[in-house]
Amino acid sequence: MNYDDFARLGLSIDMTRGKPAPEQLDLSRGLIDEAGTVGHLSRDGIDCRNYGHLLGLPEARELGAELLGLSPSQVAAAGNSSLELMHDALSFAMLFGLPGGEPWRKSAKEVAFLCPVPGYDRHFAICEALGIRMIAVPLGDDGPDMDFVEAQVAADPSIKGIWCTPLYSNPTGTIYSEDVVRRLASMPTAAPDFRLFWDDAYRFHHLTERRHASPDIVGATLKSGYPDRALVFASLSKVTLAGGGVAFLASSPRNIDWWQRHVSVRTIGPDKLNQLRHVRFLRDRAGLERLMERHRALLRPKFDAVAATFEAMLADARGVSWSTPQGGYFVSLYTPDGLAKRTVALAAEAGIVLTPAGAAFPYRIDSRDTHLRIAPSFPSLADIELAAKGIALSLRRAIDERK
Amino acid sequence: MNYDDFARLGLSIDMTRGKPAPEQLDLSRGLIDEAGTVGHLSRDGIDCRNYGHLLGLPEARELGAELLGLSPSQVAAAGNSSLELMHDALSFAMLFGLPGGEPWRKSAKEVAFLCPVPGYDRHFAICEALGIRMIAVPLGDDGPDMDFVEAQVAADPSIKGIWCTPLYSNPTGTIYSEDVVRRLASMPTAAPDFRLFWDDAYRFHHLTERRHASPDIVGATLKSGYPDRALVFASLSKVTLAGGGVAFLASSPRNIDWWQRHVSVRTIGPDKLNQLRHVRFLRDRAGLERLMERHRALLRPKFDAVAATFEAMLADARGVSWSTPQGGYFVSLYTPDGLAKRTVALAAEAGIVLTPAGAAFPYRIDSRDTHLRIAPSFPSLADIELAAKGIALSLRRAIDERK
Repeated sequence: MNYDDFARLGLSIDMTRGKPAPEQLDLSRGLIDEAGTVGHLSRDGIDCRNYGHLLGLPEARELGAELLGLSPSQVAAAGNSSLELMHDALSFAMLFGLPGGEPWRKSAKEVAFLCPVPGYDRHFAICEALGIRMIAVPLGDDGPDMDFVEAQVAADPSIKGIWCTPLYSNPTGTIYSEDVVRRLASMPTAAPDFRLFWDDAYRFHHLTERRHASPDIVGATLKSGYPDRALVFASLSKVTLAGGGVAFLASSPRNIDWWQRHVSVRTIGPDKLNQLRHVRFLRDRAGLERLMERHRALLRPKFDAVAATFEAMLADARGVSWSTPQGGYFVSLYTPDGLAKRTVALAAEAGIVLTPAGAAFPYRIDSRDTHLRIAPSFPSLADIELAAKGIALSLRRAIDERK
Repeated sequence: MNYDDFARLGLSIDMTRGKPAPEQLDLSRGLIDEAGTVGHLSRDGIDCRNYGHLLGLPEARELGAELLGLSPSQVAAAGNSSLELMHDALSFAMLFGLPGGEPWRKSAKEVAFLCPVPGYDRHFAICEALGIRMIAVPLGDDGPDMDFVEAQVAADPSIKGIWCTPLYSNPTGTIYSEDVVRRLASMPTAAPDFRLFWDDAYRFHHLTERRHASPDIVGATLKSGYPDRALVFASLSKVTLAGGGVAFLASSPRNIDWWQRHVSVRTIGPDKLNQLRHVRFLRDRAGLERLMERHRALLRPKFDAVAATFEAMLADARGVSWSTPQGGYFVSLYTPDGLAKRTVALAAEAGIVLTPAGAAFPYRIDSRDTHLRIAPSFPSLADIELAAKGIALSLRRAIDERK
């Protein structure tokens, strides 16, 4: 089949966002069906129907701590979105300052963030909204280019942080190496209030039998004498229910105190009933890992289909490559220079909606125009097979057009 | 019984916060017990287990609109806390500016808010945290002193807003008159981005058979040519489950667009499953009003007990008065000048913990030291009867000490 034949199929497949498929959400059916049996009293006799417990239900904090390998006092269990926690941490830093620093809004020079690219568009959107200047950092096979990072943060006190998705990065699937993590934890920074914004979004989202471990960044920063450097974010949205889970913030006691101080002005507490339901449903880390195995069984064939189709249809295309992630929610497809936008446009004409080209870069500028983010989780396997074919045909057509 | 006898009873009663009692929370038992029967599909076939719907589930927005007497397009259904919405609206104004205005952080002069007093301590805490200068406004029987308000806002462009709890104000029970509402909606303001922060927290929280109606402030501002002036906040926390309900933001289309733009950076959407449960449980305004009748049946005897005890024990005390609210969650007790702090201290020694004196004022300064906020909702009726007695004895002792 060529591109024109494919386009005539009149498909409509949405591959724009990393959403779980309905079959994945069905795995947490018990969370909904058994909700009526959970009641309202926590293990400790806390009435989860009433106000309070700003940092979350104690047993939800304990679950988060077990999942993240930290102490419950270092973990806040919050609402339904870790993105909110990242946004609010940056807002608080802008408005009020981090421990040991001035409010960023009072900085003489515009504050800046390092952004490994390709990266998560919603991270970059927060920086852009807050007027935080974004500096793109090349992302290698083992994490951000640390020579570049170290030189930048050592020289410029206006650089206040770096976005890190240490395991199965969105959208490249990158796994940070131990050496990269050690260097991030121990590098000297000109800004005393420099922070690692550590989005551990895919900590349990393995696609292979090998369960790569997220690095213990809080421990690493403590060991290297920068105990307050890491703010760790995690979420159950892609474990149980997307937008209906529980989000966690984990860090040093000093940062948690800071968080509590500012959050106490904003709310009286999170929805403890949803936290209670989650604790009862997941129970512990082993329970979560069993659930993630079932996610893997549903997701793996979709990623395999993308890889097999690209291998069959694009292996001989010069300048084309793609990631074969061992976890997470995305595949990155690289076109020859200057063809990503055209490929997205051709795919759209053929009924396949992709994330806009450039979305994975600060200010949406992929200067070489080569990167496509592909989200194979939501559509059915049959649709993924079709879509991968359509994407490959669109890319080949884009290449042909230039000949 | 005198104060010393009372203190020897060794009681421990917490009257600090406006929390619903367990019996009130039991009224929404169905929301928990029947949660398993709600499923995950909305009326419109939306899978509430997945991401999206930034401004809330359509039927939750419709319920909010019915409750607030507005169109669903003017209502956002959000998370579990209206306080969060107020905080975020102020944060967004500070960081990004309101429609038609510069970011407040860039204002040459410190921005200011009018704060009718006594008022809600958490409103004032947000202003204090954000560095918004608070100007106390006397609160009369029919709302804020409008001659004062009009003169202030007309003269000073740095005054960006006023906190209003229009019905059964916290903590005075004040009901804003039609004339006050009309003047708030139509007064000229020097700041083009002036806003009424309209906390409609007690819209359905009647204590008498007369259901006072919250004024239609969005309609009133539209009529007077200031369609973007009001930001309305409401919450189901004191209707169903405290901290487990659904909060609403309502305003003009322009303000809702503004809200959506900034919230889209912060989150992918609210917990739609909790919104779905609430829609199914409450059904409509009539369903909510039936539920509120049952709240009233539980709350009214507690407020009556406070009023009866104060009447019996304090009617002859010179310079002492108290509010007899027709709705809401609080009673205000006024001591002779300079005795509020001492009364709180004496009550604490007698085992009754009250909100700190001054809490209802900006910067916690009640210059005359006369106001006590009493929250009779949470303790049992028997405890309320005892506590009211203890408070009255403490106040009489404070008066006696000064003789």
